[in-house]
Amino acid sequence: MKPLLSLILTRRLSSPLVAGTPLHSNNNYTSVVAPLRRLHRPAFAPSTPRLKFQIPQTNKKKPEKMSTDATTLKGQPLDRAALDAMLRRRLFYTPSFEIYGGVSGLYDYGPPGCALQANVIDLWRKHFILEEDMLEVDCTVLTPHDVLKTSGHVDKFADWMCKDPKNGEILRADHFVEDILEQRLKGDKEARGLKVEEKEETDKKKAAKKKKNKGGVEAVRLDDAVVKEYEEILAQIDNYNGEQLGELIKKHDLRNPATGLQPTPPVSFNLMFQTSIGPSSNLPGYLRPETAQGQFLNFAKLLEFNTGQMPFASASIGKSYRNEISPRAGLLRVREFLMAEIEHFVDPEGHKKHARFHEVADVELAFLDRHTQLSGSTVVKKQTIGQAVKEGLVDNETLGYFLARILLFLKKIGIDEKKIRFRQHMDNEMAHYACDCWDAELHTSAGWVECVGCADRSAYDLSVHAKKTGAPLVVRQRLEEPITIEEWDIAIDKKNFGPFYKKDGKTIENALLATTQEQRGELVKQLEENGKVVIDVPGVNNGKVEVSKDLLAIKWVKRVENVREYTPNVIEPSFGIGRILYSLMEHNYWTRASEGGDEARGVLSFPPAVAPTKVLIVPLSSNKDFTPEVRKLSQKLRSAGVSSRIDDSSASIGKRYSRNDELGTPFGVTVDFQTLKDGTVTLRERDSTRQVRAEEDKIIAAIKALVEGTKTWQDVEEELPIFEGQQEVEVVVR
Amino acid sequence: MKPLLSLILTRRLSSPLVAGTPLHSNNNYTSVVAPLRRLHRPAFAPSTPRLKFQIPQTNKKKPEKMSTDATTLKGQPLDRAALDAMLRRRLFYTPSFEIYGGVSGLYDYGPPGCALQANVIDLWRKHFILEEDMLEVDCTVLTPHDVLKTSGHVDKFADWMCKDPKNGEILRADHFVEDILEQRLKGDKEARGLKVEEKEETDKKKAAKKKKNKGGVEAVRLDDAVVKEYEEILAQIDNYNGEQLGELIKKHDLRNPATGLQPTPPVSFNLMFQTSIGPSSNLPGYLRPETAQGQFLNFAKLLEFNTGQMPFASASIGKSYRNEISPRAGLLRVREFLMAEIEHFVDPEGHKKHARFHEVADVELAFLDRHTQLSGSTVVKKQTIGQAVKEGLVDNETLGYFLARILLFLKKIGIDEKKIRFRQHMDNEMAHYACDCWDAELHTSAGWVECVGCADRSAYDLSVHAKKTGAPLVVRQRLEEPITIEEWDIAIDKKNFGPFYKKDGKTIENALLATTQEQRGELVKQLEENGKVVIDVPGVNNGKVEVSKDLLAIKWVKRVENVREYTPNVIEPSFGIGRILYSLMEHNYWTRASEGGDEARGVLSFPPAVAPTKVLIVPLSSNKDFTPEVRKLSQKLRSAGVSSRIDDSSASIGKRYSRNDELGTPFGVTVDFQTLKDGTVTLRERDSTRQVRAEEDKIIAAIKALVEGTKTWQDVEEELPIFEGQQEVEVVVR
Repeated sequence: MKPLLSLILTRRLSSPLVAGTPLHSNNNYTSVVAPLRRLHRPAFAPSTPRLKFQIPQTNKKKPEKMSTDATTLKGQPLDRAALDAMLRRRLFYTPSFEIYGGVSGLYDYGPPGCALQANVIDLWRKHFILEEDMLEVDCTVLTPHDVLKTSGHVDKFADWMCKDPKNGEILRADHFVEDILEQRLKGDKEARGLKVEEKEETDKKKAAKKKKNKGGVEAVRLDDAVVKEYEEILAQIDNYNGEQLGELIKKHDLRNPATGLQPTPPVSFNLMFQTSIGPSSNLPGYLRPETAQGQFLNFAKLLEFNTGQMPFASASIGKSYRNEISPRAGLLRVREFLMAEIEHFVDPEGHKKHARFHEVADVELAFLDRHTQLSGSTVVKKQTIGQAVKEGLVDNETLGYFLARILLFLKKIGIDEKKIRFRQHMDNEMAHYACDCWDAELHTSAGWVECVGCADRSAYDLSVHAKKTGAPLVVRQRLEEPITIEEWDIAIDKKNFGPFYKKDGKTIENALLATTQEQRGELVKQLEENGKVVIDVPGVNNGKVEVSKDLLAIKWVKRVENVREYTPNVIEPSFGIGRILYSLMEHNYWTRASEGGDEARGVLSFPPAVAPTKVLIVPLSSNKDFTPEVRKLSQKLRSAGVSSRIDDSSASIGKRYSRNDELGTPFGVTVDFQTLKDGTVTLRERDSTRQVRAEEDKIIAAIKALVEGTKTWQDVEEELPIFEGQQEVEVVVR
Repeated sequence: MKPLLSLILTRRLSSPLVAGTPLHSNNNYTSVVAPLRRLHRPAFAPSTPRLKFQIPQTNKKKPEKMSTDATTLKGQPLDRAALDAMLRRRLFYTPSFEIYGGVSGLYDYGPPGCALQANVIDLWRKHFILEEDMLEVDCTVLTPHDVLKTSGHVDKFADWMCKDPKNGEILRADHFVEDILEQRLKGDKEARGLKVEEKEETDKKKAAKKKKNKGGVEAVRLDDAVVKEYEEILAQIDNYNGEQLGELIKKHDLRNPATGLQPTPPVSFNLMFQTSIGPSSNLPGYLRPETAQGQFLNFAKLLEFNTGQMPFASASIGKSYRNEISPRAGLLRVREFLMAEIEHFVDPEGHKKHARFHEVADVELAFLDRHTQLSGSTVVKKQTIGQAVKEGLVDNETLGYFLARILLFLKKIGIDEKKIRFRQHMDNEMAHYACDCWDAELHTSAGWVECVGCADRSAYDLSVHAKKTGAPLVVRQRLEEPITIEEWDIAIDKKNFGPFYKKDGKTIENALLATTQEQRGELVKQLEENGKVVIDVPGVNNGKVEVSKDLLAIKWVKRVENVREYTPNVIEPSFGIGRILYSLMEHNYWTRASEGGDEARGVLSFPPAVAPTKVLIVPLSSNKDFTPEVRKLSQKLRSAGVSSRIDDSSASIGKRYSRNDELGTPFGVTVDFQTLKDGTVTLRERDSTRQVRAEEDKIIAAIKALVEGTKTWQDVEEELPIFEGQQEVEVVVR
């Protein structure tokens, strides 16, 4: 059973989409984890790559059906192709530069996508920045080399890439090795007559795969030893560097199925877009891969702006860039994307309590903790955040506070709560400085997609930048009670020390001052015994230097400190806005039959708060008599702060409403001949297609209440007369 | 007199800041124009560079005092250094990457700058996009080479740059030539004992200049012929290309004063940031220099989204990038900047009428038309836009409508109306396709600065992209009355034509089809007379090809057309948000004496709608008893939709209010011991420092009304009891 299980479990479900920096993965934990889509480039920290918007490579093992279990708002099976076609037709988004052939990984938002994005950002700003008095900053995208060198991105924000020598196809080396070995193991299984457990796939995907593999798996039986070797390679595929991957390709003669040739040796490909700042070409720069660094660099100024008070958070909404090797997942994997990031700076001492935690303590979240994942299950546990922090499931109140606030935000904009889970990073996918890390994942046709990361970045970033620049990125906190410190103090005779050691004076002095308390205790003994000390000074006098007691004094001193200095830790909720928007569109999509019942019509049931347009104004026909009334209505709605659009095109009323159901417009007002007589208009609700009719001002008041959420459609139906005139047929297609 | 006048008038006032693409300037008009700052890179069109965010190079002649006439909101002389220091201290903006030494031309916005920007953008979106049902799009910054090649930016979006061979200083070639020649002419005048009329300069500027010139002007008398030659060169400085500039440097032995050496020959420096998209390095790309191109490329989709109806506008708010050679003007000249651009597509026929023009017809603008400029005056003419269009001063209603709307927007956000003028481009600075072009200029310490451009781009961009890609970027309009067209129709015998001409067939066919009606009339005669035609086909058979009547028929035909096809013209209002923000800060800045009267304190009197924070909540002291009340107040304000900040730092109330006057916070609420007794709080108004006191809910209602603009402070003082408790002294420092 072992080989079979292992084979199944090592199939990386999301291979074509993945471009992740290899993680620490010894793969002890990889055999039983639920499938996840790794769609995004990880942000990372140099010594230990860390995740941000990446579904970890360790989560690739257990087969499960993927997209086929995605549903619409009404529980219908989701047809992603139909939805995508609709979203493009209605210009929610469109490939950039399409008339020039397009560029993969680049998309433009058209008017409804743009309005949806603006509304979501507006709510985000209110929900996070205004609610918490966060300090919003807008830093540049252009970032000089030195900054990203220090943060580690220049050296490590890269993938291994190789090339087919014949057709020029560019391959990600680790994925290529993995794919080919998995194919061979599959062929072996077939040859052994074992049933190949395969995850469900749509016909389309199967066809695409077949094409790629030139006719699929060859059933070739392998030696047992070879099977074992392949499995061992696959189990640690994330641990190989480029050279090692190249050796694997040679040793096992791995060939690109498309050409039958071995690809070239892997080379490192940095995923940042590079450019040059200024005319002299001597200031290389990059487009930032995350907004976080700009916030860290401004830490000292922000702390001062905040009158020195801790904790506080900065926040930034802006574009970031990652030059993906081969982006192919629509809006879920792009090269230019909008992020909204919060860096919450907190004192590492005091258990990271949060003053407003009690406000969210009762919020219930669906947790998928690391232990559950390691046990092979993906069953979530519903629990209040208060309980979760109390039990230690979530490390601290600040982290817990943000998890709850993230959930509340996602629900507010219309994400389906049933399709949200909080997945905890496992030990081997978490950076060494993180004590806890959770991702808000949204379920879509691409599986569970990480849309918000919430990590503890510890003091890492502030520390490396402070070390590099000498800027004091620290908090100096006045102590309520001064503390007394007793310790060895070292002093040199400045007047004679320099002249005695000449050019080495400063180096030797620094070496003395850098000694630890323990070492000083030793030095005191030497001074007493020998009248001199011998210390290690690399580079001076064979590395050993004698200092006599005439030049040096070490004393036990007592001093009182009134100020405590510390580097804050950072809790970072980081939102991928594009992914959230796409999930939002999927979660609010459903179809209903047209009047004849023969054709499914798309509906996007966005909550009014995020809907691109709140009201559609529809004159019954293009008769010019309606124009003044339509204009007046539009003006009145604008004054009421409600965005509307007029559709006076020649299409039938039904067609015009259909179009706006696809655009997610929640309300429609019809102006007809009756309006010209008595000033009444009809108000249609998108989801039920039911209508009421009343005087214009009453309808406007009702719309305002509906948009602001102070009334439901039910309320409106109870208050205003139902209108049965142009009722549309509603049939939910299941 | 001539030499003297000419000398004075040709001094380019803004030299150190300028990086404009040479314009069509034969300089007939340049001798008498008011000084302007050319701060921004021009957008441009290939064959004729056009302006966007550039103050034209022709406007450099007449000396006038520059920064010294800038005033504060209260008419005080503006101390720009003091204002800048305050803006940085309060983190409105800060140099990016400052702890790494900074990068010139890159700035971050801190919390107040960021909030100011967000508020201005929000008002912009409401004022333009929502008000006009514009189609907002969000296109990518990354742009592939081909797009910007077609638009002309790859070839021509460049400056001529040369380098000092010793110190490596990079110089803009045209500015260098100009500066040196002007210095020599100045020296000549001094030698002739003529008074050098010099524009007023602050001591600081003088010092900087002195340093640059290594001791200032040398008084050396030149031959009259040389003076004349220099003057002629200066008059057409914008017309030289790189090679010619290089020749001037050699011929006149122009040397960099800093080193005494001639710089290297000028090379072209493209001002776009270049990068490479994707892993294979074969897709060069750029960061867009304007948002316009993305909008043009989506024209056909946007037209369809708008159900084919014309006119309509698209709009985009986003960052653009220009790799300035040497940016030195703070926020007024940066390498990464936010733009808000509208592309209004209109039928070129029908005089570009605008349906809503009557709504703005009575709006009065300060016009500086081209004729006034040419006559040597900068006196503006105040006139309604209705009158201006009627008189033909402004070319058409659509352009006029946007000029008025721009003014209304600028006033709404708090720009001082007295410091706004609309300057018309002169013939020689306007692109050939523009029939009219106006800039909204704001007066600042840097002189009159172009902040909004409003140009007619004609059909240029849509035409070049359509030609390049074959995409039909046109409007097809159903004609109400079909029109009958009679014309020569040309037809070839497809069956025999190709085989006869073989590989040249298609080329010859295209040449035939490309003939004009007039040419066809001629060809008909040839056919009748000779039984064949001879046409020009470049590249085939010595350029002349015979086609016999067997293969060709030309007939007079009549056809009925129901559809008219045309390429729309574009009216483009284009806003440089950063420049507007900076101007807004200057226009709303003033100082008042502190309580003792000895120290000037800065105030930023932003209108509540754009103020970064609306209300400051100040507990009397850091006494913990105030905390619940302060929190409650903050929560209530939030519910009322009003942003507030709490300042419970230990500074005195006066200090805290001072700080917030500098931040432009219009209202302050003090919580004191009285509050804990009777629930009343005081409300302070920033500009008058006067206070009222009432119950919390009344104060909140008053604030809401003040922020929404439904009440003035006067109203509030009449309704609520005046509070004299902690009155501050207000003295306007003049």
